[in-house]
Amino acid sequence: MALDNEMINIAKKAKEASRVLATLDADRKNSALKSMARNLIKKKAAILKANRLDVKNARRKGLSAAMLERLTLNDKRLKSMADGLRTVASLKDEVGVVYDTQKRPNGLWICKMRVPIGVIAIIYESRPNVTSDCVGLCLKSGNSIILRGGSEAINSNIAIYDILNSAAKASKLPDGSINMVKTTDRKAVGILLKQADYIDLVMPRGGEGLIREVVSKSRIPVIKHYKGICHVYVDRYADINMAHRIAVNAKVQRPGVCNAMETLLVHNEIAPRFLPVLVKELQDKGVEVRGCQKTRAMARGVKAAKENDWSQEYLDLILAVKVVSSLDEAIGHIARYGSMHSDTIVTDNYSNAMKFLRCVDSSSVYLNASTRFTDGGEFGMGAEIGISTDKLHARGPMGLHELTSYKYVIFGNGQIRT
Amino acid sequence: MALDNEMINIAKKAKEASRVLATLDADRKNSALKSMARNLIKKKAAILKANRLDVKNARRKGLSAAMLERLTLNDKRLKSMADGLRTVASLKDEVGVVYDTQKRPNGLWICKMRVPIGVIAIIYESRPNVTSDCVGLCLKSGNSIILRGGSEAINSNIAIYDILNSAAKASKLPDGSINMVKTTDRKAVGILLKQADYIDLVMPRGGEGLIREVVSKSRIPVIKHYKGICHVYVDRYADINMAHRIAVNAKVQRPGVCNAMETLLVHNEIAPRFLPVLVKELQDKGVEVRGCQKTRAMARGVKAAKENDWSQEYLDLILAVKVVSSLDEAIGHIARYGSMHSDTIVTDNYSNAMKFLRCVDSSSVYLNASTRFTDGGEFGMGAEIGISTDKLHARGPMGLHELTSYKYVIFGNGQIRT
Repeated sequence: MALDNEMINIAKKAKEASRVLATLDADRKNSALKSMARNLIKKKAAILKANRLDVKNARRKGLSAAMLERLTLNDKRLKSMADGLRTVASLKDEVGVVYDTQKRPNGLWICKMRVPIGVIAIIYESRPNVTSDCVGLCLKSGNSIILRGGSEAINSNIAIYDILNSAAKASKLPDGSINMVKTTDRKAVGILLKQADYIDLVMPRGGEGLIREVVSKSRIPVIKHYKGICHVYVDRYADINMAHRIAVNAKVQRPGVCNAMETLLVHNEIAPRFLPVLVKELQDKGVEVRGCQKTRAMARGVKAAKENDWSQEYLDLILAVKVVSSLDEAIGHIARYGSMHSDTIVTDNYSNAMKFLRCVDSSSVYLNASTRFTDGGEFGMGAEIGISTDKLHARGPMGLHELTSYKYVIFGNGQIRT
Repeated sequence: MALDNEMINIAKKAKEASRVLATLDADRKNSALKSMARNLIKKKAAILKANRLDVKNARRKGLSAAMLERLTLNDKRLKSMADGLRTVASLKDEVGVVYDTQKRPNGLWICKMRVPIGVIAIIYESRPNVTSDCVGLCLKSGNSIILRGGSEAINSNIAIYDILNSAAKASKLPDGSINMVKTTDRKAVGILLKQADYIDLVMPRGGEGLIREVVSKSRIPVIKHYKGICHVYVDRYADINMAHRIAVNAKVQRPGVCNAMETLLVHNEIAPRFLPVLVKELQDKGVEVRGCQKTRAMARGVKAAKENDWSQEYLDLILAVKVVSSLDEAIGHIARYGSMHSDTIVTDNYSNAMKFLRCVDSSSVYLNASTRFTDGGEFGMGAEIGISTDKLHARGPMGLHELTSYKYVIFGNGQIRT
């Protein structure tokens, strides 16, 4: 019950603060963000000290090298956190913007006004920079935030939070604008996820396991992506050189991220000219290629792909390759095994291009470009809080605009309904 | 297990159909809608016969007169259902519209394209016209639909569904575009609400009990409104005649609907000139007035309002009245007791108007107009599928546009990420 009360109090306080935050001028929010950025650098010793403790504990627990790398902070990462807050301060304030105005025959002016969502809970793992990134974006979009980081980064997260929250208080933001669940008791998340009266949106960030757990427990709307199984489809009418460049880029440039290619689909008419050269280059770059029978007949050193290869997010230098006999087969494969993240067609044929763009149901669908562009920065958002593969509210990279909703505002001069 | 399989099959079929529906031309959808409208009239005898059976059963079970009235179909109501389908056919097709195009420095064109949501389940009570209204809107917006009506209207719903579905088949819409759960087994809903892999959105329509049950069981996103506790706030700077007209209209014109006023808030500086006359007129029109102490001191025949009057949706000729001493108190009252539906301020003061419009967090916020305008038709949508008081995806009346989502579509000429 003590834990219940603690979580409910955090959520209630956040809701109260959100009402004040919702109408703050951009100047107030921006000066708070800049003060946070300054303080992150000024007080970096405290953060780095806390981070060393987390890293030491993680080593003792035997966390993987990749996990340790994500967890570790240094001067460069702290500077990039501070720069991130300054960038968000420089972005346009979305809140209060009035748009889609129409004048009705009875003289009513009906408009939409962008409004904050309210209270946003972020449940995340590992990377402590998520703490400041999310605080910046939620604050600028007028939302109060409840942070719940992973136990492996608890000391780093608390150190960062304390600095940000002190700056927020010094900038006279309402109490409860920025909240952190400081206990590592796992029950806390379950309690938070029931506070639908106070929390408006939950965004889990981390591995698929964490996200599935949040979705299964939440009584609050969740926006998320489980994983990124991104496809490059090389159509029979593709420019072979372009297809080659795009496939290499989508797989190799940064294989550990969600918008990297996991499966390559190639039309059988172009495959004999395309696949042998591509597979060789990928292998030279250290990629393990797993292919269908036809792929293996065309290229050397290709392991046999199993059924579960088509639905796996490797996040690594591994690629599944399948030769298909039609555009429809490619579209069907993506519908069946894809994750609605990012998929691209390489083609010079207008009808095939338009069919792919219309029929593939993913949140970002490309023509003749690498899937690696699915990112708030690349989409011109300035910063992103995450990527959605859901169908509602927001899809693809989510920035400040996606952290707001709208309400109808209606201007009358005495209209009554008859 | 048989019921589980049946529900899962319906959901799967609906998902498959949704992929085809998503890319149908407007002409195909419109001709199906018009054929549905024609057949509703042509085969009305079957519907009216089924409806008489429902009404007979309802009488036997002792349903209230209001419920019976909602359940009963006649020639006029059937004509209005058919007209509704024709209206939806005449509305602009939202699907496939490309907008918000930007050209990035690297030459990528990044756009948004409106897309259907996918599969929409409607869980509803009583009014059989909901069946055809929802089919029309979901079909036109490219979504497949799963209907689950209340047991009291089961025969009417099945009769309407069978006619609509035959017309859909004759118009060569994909099998599974329009689905109805024909069993009245209550477990069916619980099973449906777990099919998050196949169903994208649930919209419950009916009493608060039904909606709370759906929300508590659903693993699928739900858009809904629980109730409409709409406020009229008469500011100290209100035009008294306008305030009078708006208050009477918002309460009396159609008290049984969700956008009717349930609570009147009056600034204490204007209350002595405003309230006595208004209360008298409302009482003459049959309204029972329940007021705070100050209200009771100013007007005759006012019962004492209790705490729970402020959060009650009467849907009847009953009104709660409270005198407040400031705009802030009015805004605070609405935040505490309101339902985020529709609230209005009557004032001629610019600052107070703008503060109310900014600070009241409801999905529709009015200045100098009756709350009764919150309605798809009045908002120029042509038709509505419901009203949302949620914070995400869509708020206020929801029409065809709100039944779609978007995806990013990116046009490149070989861009790779560096």
